[in-house]
Amino acid sequence: MRGEIICIGDELISGRVAESNSRYAAARLWPLDIGLAWVVMVGDDPAAIQEALAQACARADYLIVSGGLGTTEDDLTAAQAARFLGLELAEHPQKLQQLEDMLRPRGRDLTPEIRRMASMPSGARPLDPRSAGFALNSADGRPLYFLPGVPLEFRRIMEHTVLPELAARAGAGVVARRELRVYGLPESEVGRRLAGLTQSFSGAGLGYYPVFPEVHLILSQRAAGQEAASAALEPLEAEVRRRLEGHVVAQGGASLEQTVAALLSGQHLTLALAESCTGGLIGHRLTSVPGASDFLERGLVVYSNRAKAELLDVSPATLETHGAVSAQCAQEMAQGARQRAGVDVGLAVTGIAGPTGGSEQKPVGTVFFGLSHAGGTQTLQRRFYGDRAMVKAQAAETALDLLRRYLEEHAPVRGS
Amino acid sequence: MRGEIICIGDELISGRVAESNSRYAAARLWPLDIGLAWVVMVGDDPAAIQEALAQACARADYLIVSGGLGTTEDDLTAAQAARFLGLELAEHPQKLQQLEDMLRPRGRDLTPEIRRMASMPSGARPLDPRSAGFALNSADGRPLYFLPGVPLEFRRIMEHTVLPELAARAGAGVVARRELRVYGLPESEVGRRLAGLTQSFSGAGLGYYPVFPEVHLILSQRAAGQEAASAALEPLEAEVRRRLEGHVVAQGGASLEQTVAALLSGQHLTLALAESCTGGLIGHRLTSVPGASDFLERGLVVYSNRAKAELLDVSPATLETHGAVSAQCAQEMAQGARQRAGVDVGLAVTGIAGPTGGSEQKPVGTVFFGLSHAGGTQTLQRRFYGDRAMVKAQAAETALDLLRRYLEEHAPVRGS
Repeated sequence: MRGEIICIGDELISGRVAESNSRYAAARLWPLDIGLAWVVMVGDDPAAIQEALAQACARADYLIVSGGLGTTEDDLTAAQAARFLGLELAEHPQKLQQLEDMLRPRGRDLTPEIRRMASMPSGARPLDPRSAGFALNSADGRPLYFLPGVPLEFRRIMEHTVLPELAARAGAGVVARRELRVYGLPESEVGRRLAGLTQSFSGAGLGYYPVFPEVHLILSQRAAGQEAASAALEPLEAEVRRRLEGHVVAQGGASLEQTVAALLSGQHLTLALAESCTGGLIGHRLTSVPGASDFLERGLVVYSNRAKAELLDVSPATLETHGAVSAQCAQEMAQGARQRAGVDVGLAVTGIAGPTGGSEQKPVGTVFFGLSHAGGTQTLQRRFYGDRAMVKAQAAETALDLLRRYLEEHAPVRGS
Repeated sequence: MRGEIICIGDELISGRVAESNSRYAAARLWPLDIGLAWVVMVGDDPAAIQEALAQACARADYLIVSGGLGTTEDDLTAAQAARFLGLELAEHPQKLQQLEDMLRPRGRDLTPEIRRMASMPSGARPLDPRSAGFALNSADGRPLYFLPGVPLEFRRIMEHTVLPELAARAGAGVVARRELRVYGLPESEVGRRLAGLTQSFSGAGLGYYPVFPEVHLILSQRAAGQEAASAALEPLEAEVRRRLEGHVVAQGGASLEQTVAALLSGQHLTLALAESCTGGLIGHRLTSVPGASDFLERGLVVYSNRAKAELLDVSPATLETHGAVSAQCAQEMAQGARQRAGVDVGLAVTGIAGPTGGSEQKPVGTVFFGLSHAGGTQTLQRRFYGDRAMVKAQAAETALDLLRRYLEEHAPVRGS
């Protein structure tokens, strides 16, 4: 079973807005072995929409259409679908009722514009009480799904309706999925370590999605029922984790900063940051997690030597002998952050983000890390490649990962 | 003249890699009035490639194909192009020579794999000495471009060859372009203020690209020659700036942080940051600019009241009477940052990023700003809408814009 998606909109075909629904659908359908064979994008142009629908229905086993279901006059999809299928365009009574029920508590009226969201070819069924969108079959029985282009709504309807229905139709049974985020290994090495794995687990699938500087893995397991599929995921995930040796930094859709935040909160530990080359990126990532004020006492962006000495008690001798980019400086920064802030953990980064400032001994991309806690202070040195943004991204990721490993490996003993 | 792009690759159709060439091509072709009408994506599948080529040549005035021109066996595009056009696939002697010339200084041999890059339908012309890719006309005279999928190579060949050739073919003349980034006005208000503008300037075009929280404007002017086109842009840009009243925050492809960095460096001013709800995002943005260490002395992420008092001398009375989210606190934070760091300018942000922590008087999204300089300390209050990430993004943007306006409006007097 191979499908097609048609994405409709002048904003897409003019490049004004980046189209993202097709990749999302492709990435979700592929591991189920009911992937897309064609992605087509056209503008708000009736003739092009008719041609695209005709071509798709001639070659694809199912069709997903994204966009053109809004409340304005350039939203043509429902009318064009009706025309293509030779059906009347009609207001769906149940859908109209849902719209009224949604608007009433907000004190809003059912305007003619909003009524448009209830228009669909006669015989179609609405897909989601909160959104536009409908489904029906073509004359020869192919399932056709018409979804709103708004990514949040598109994804919700894909997850709740389209993916389960298509998987059931393909006899694919139920598929359970789990996401793992991997850091610290190149994609090729992740692939090498996991090669042949899916052959050892019946019904298993494995997708790789590099999202710099991480590699996201989607594990999937197909089985007759949900419980069996979820249960079958456990040994697969365990084997993946074993082969990746601690490089799984987050799971279940969480980010590394969410993982670290949950570990800090769970162990009732407080944190102070001392950032040089990352310039605030670690603080920004951690404070993107709601409730960060529970564990983050302060962050110090110490770009100057004066700030390192004044705010973190880095000794002039260290700066003179070893320089600001050194293991010794990282160690004193972490210790100073922890002691001055009176927190449990101090995390420090100092390095050369580039493009200038490198030397033969310390080339651009050289970064030192310090982690100070009740058990002592550890340091780490890394060399990163890429432009300034890539060095900063890898340095922030490595710092957060250093903290994650400490929090996961050590018993939660509260220091001061 | 309306075109089509076909993007080829299993990595695209499976969702493993995000396809970006089509949006790039669309956004570059649209302002020239020779935009794309169709975007099509297929896998490394000969039958699908043949079908896509046939459909494109039946409906498009020109065709761009992206991908499948590499050195491995799944790179099918050259062979499929030859088959579709009924031409021989042959090694292009001049291209072969270019490849040899490129490899020799690196001490590398012309392997059979690399030779594949010189294969093209007989009669085609190579497009770029450093990349694969070729062009030829269809039997009925439509221009067909086959480009490598690697985005850097795709874009280089688009800029150097495809765009000028297509523009000349359409008689579009030369088009000069300028980008302005706008902040502080909703897109609808930008549109209202600029409505009708292009009618007053012959050959003018205006594109809107919302990139949250900014709106990017592309001004374009078509004329017979480059000099005339560039000259015609000046009064258009002046009128746009007049109507947007100071809301243009960056130009020429620069970001707001690059604009602020250039102003600080140009005026030899130093800066200290005091961030609460932005959590380090302002520091991260400013340190993304190479050379930020010339002006950024330090940044303080003061998430706790203790840190605000200890590091910035915010008075206990202020925290008690007005709270940490107040104009008074923002003012003291900016003053404290400037004085303690001994710099020219102190910039402070304190607010409620949400989703919790709001009150009736200070709802989620309430943010106060402080800017302290030789002339005194100013404060600003704003209310932002959206989720935590959106509030942070708008708060950081507003803070940088406050600094930009100060630096642009005040004579460069060095304080201390």
